[in-house]
Amino acid sequence: MSVTDVPGFVASGLSCGIKSSNRPDLALIASEDRTPVTAAGVFTRNKMTAAPVTVSRHNLARSAGRAAAVIINSGNANAATGPDGMRDAAVMASQTAKALDVDSHHVLVCSTGLIGFPLPMEAIESGIPHAVEALSPDGGLAAATAMLTTDSREKLATVTADVDGLVTTFGGIAKGSAMLEPNMATMLSVITTDAALTPDEASGLLVQAVESTFNRLTVDGAESTNDTVLLLANGRAGRPEDIASLLAPLTEVCTELAVMMADDAEGSTKTVFITVSGASSDADAATVARSIANCQLIKCSWYGKDPYWGRIAAEAGSAAEAFSPDTLTISYGGIPTFEMGKATEPETGALAEVMNQRRLDLDIDLGQGPGRSQIVTTDLTHAYIDENMGTS
Amino acid sequence: MSVTDVPGFVASGLSCGIKSSNRPDLALIASEDRTPVTAAGVFTRNKMTAAPVTVSRHNLARSAGRAAAVIINSGNANAATGPDGMRDAAVMASQTAKALDVDSHHVLVCSTGLIGFPLPMEAIESGIPHAVEALSPDGGLAAATAMLTTDSREKLATVTADVDGLVTTFGGIAKGSAMLEPNMATMLSVITTDAALTPDEASGLLVQAVESTFNRLTVDGAESTNDTVLLLANGRAGRPEDIASLLAPLTEVCTELAVMMADDAEGSTKTVFITVSGASSDADAATVARSIANCQLIKCSWYGKDPYWGRIAAEAGSAAEAFSPDTLTISYGGIPTFEMGKATEPETGALAEVMNQRRLDLDIDLGQGPGRSQIVTTDLTHAYIDENMGTS
Repeated sequence: MSVTDVPGFVASGLSCGIKSSNRPDLALIASEDRTPVTAAGVFTRNKMTAAPVTVSRHNLARSAGRAAAVIINSGNANAATGPDGMRDAAVMASQTAKALDVDSHHVLVCSTGLIGFPLPMEAIESGIPHAVEALSPDGGLAAATAMLTTDSREKLATVTADVDGLVTTFGGIAKGSAMLEPNMATMLSVITTDAALTPDEASGLLVQAVESTFNRLTVDGAESTNDTVLLLANGRAGRPEDIASLLAPLTEVCTELAVMMADDAEGSTKTVFITVSGASSDADAATVARSIANCQLIKCSWYGKDPYWGRIAAEAGSAAEAFSPDTLTISYGGIPTFEMGKATEPETGALAEVMNQRRLDLDIDLGQGPGRSQIVTTDLTHAYIDENMGTS
Repeated sequence: MSVTDVPGFVASGLSCGIKSSNRPDLALIASEDRTPVTAAGVFTRNKMTAAPVTVSRHNLARSAGRAAAVIINSGNANAATGPDGMRDAAVMASQTAKALDVDSHHVLVCSTGLIGFPLPMEAIESGIPHAVEALSPDGGLAAATAMLTTDSREKLATVTADVDGLVTTFGGIAKGSAMLEPNMATMLSVITTDAALTPDEASGLLVQAVESTFNRLTVDGAESTNDTVLLLANGRAGRPEDIASLLAPLTEVCTELAVMMADDAEGSTKTVFITVSGASSDADAATVARSIANCQLIKCSWYGKDPYWGRIAAEAGSAAEAFSPDTLTISYGGIPTFEMGKATEPETGALAEVMNQRRLDLDIDLGQGPGRSQIVTTDLTHAYIDENMGTS
């Protein structure tokens, strides 16, 4: 049950009428006793910032890193909506605060859906009291459902960690299946924990965990206007001596959610784990990994189950700072297809089996230095185009 | 007839058996009397450089910018082929030189096709004498045909310029329909002229013309291992006083060929002319134009004839250095859909008509400064995926 697996958090999700399909579109995650808890956020770097991102950033600053609740709507991004959109996001927070009887700057707001349409405020304002009423220690799944857009399934994760005898829990929910790119395009995630953290500690841990997980996921290179990852920490489990030890379980929750997003990416048939090693630096490895992940030609070949290393070599040669074909090795599922400048003659049966799996490991060793980077991505398919040809 | 519209150049094209389809795969462009003429080249910046690129660069350096012929094969890129590939490219040049009775460093070599397979040298060596035999002042079309890979049609252009009474002709042929990106991915072009130019002048003009034409074309963001644009100038028409005046006709030939490549891009249904204005600098405008051109989500919406400005706004906000939604205007075919921070209510009939055309003008005014840039690109379609799922 994810966020509500952590003692002291309640959640709910319901349909308030934003989506014409009547599927759930309003989610609420709250502190059970309405007390504000430590809160931290990582947001999109897109300058076309959606109104809810601006309001959540503002509220986090005003409260100095405390929040009692997160209200989320799907079906409408409230982005590129001008001053009206800013007012709507603020009203969404204040109405939720009123229904919960907390200060309005203790409520954070997230929206996801189409850009450029006014938020249907009547639906949202009528839905908020019901969402508060429905809050429950079993509500994690309902909240995870209500934040979905084109996702085909809920994304939930719970990790329990024992640090020197102190047991803490991290629970997370997330949505996102397209417009995904490092820097977290169109993804929302709320993570709760019962560890005791200061706002600065929560923020520091969250930034690190996001960097190595959500920011290493790319589906289509598009960065959204609404990306938000929030961490709420209520301290019920107490405070471990070594705060840094909490990075591992937090990262694990983020990793699980990120891989779920790749597995559920729009129209995808493959989740591809790209590892670039032997680069002149970690940064160069990251550049190469990202350009391979976002290369349309290569993404099509994964869809076609074609272990065509030629396009990989060409993309690596185009993107890498330090590069020579003579030190390059490219392997699919551990089977080298190009090794130190020469095409190999791999056993075709074994290679076909690797290409038939949903999850594919692609390893590129540049043979130039100690730099290394990983990224998770997906293939490019007919179904992706079908989903993105129109907005209706 | 393109390259052979220029007096003093002959060409031929035939099938030598590289392509299993028996379609033409060997092209030759030569100085009619075998005299070396001024020659300049612009090549891929990909570090995974194909052998023919290395050989052509070397021969141009050794001859100090002179060439008597260009030999081109399609159906095999001779890339990632190691030392054997280097030898094969050199033999391709020397065999052509022998058949023409010129020095081998006066022959330039181009290859295009699949990466990673040895060149079928027997076919090429047996084809070369036939290609020399077939050289003709009417051979431009045959050469243009023999350099094609997945292109559906030949790309030919001829421009005549009258500079202060001196009439010069520029004729060009080109191939390229995927793996196209600024920096000229998988494109080959040979341009001839009867203007008299020194090698340095030819090189200077070519670099400028390529920068504003072929390097402003992107289909899928992939940069090839083989890109080559060559200019041959035999001086028969004489030398204009103002050499810079030749930039216009040369650029015109390149523009025509570049737009032909976009119009013929793999599986595309739209050629999109993106103009970004009002950027803080030309460089920022170019960054924004290129990220919009290479955004999968946006490319799908063009295919779906959907004037969804939301994704354009999001991509611009992600890519631009200086950006505010409040000064942003986005127009399709001159019809604003988002203007100074607000969605407009365009006449849907007129907008639908714009979206129905093969060629689409997309204008993004950032309203931040004087920076401006243009790029030509295409949509992302089911047929693109079909063509790129496999290599066979």
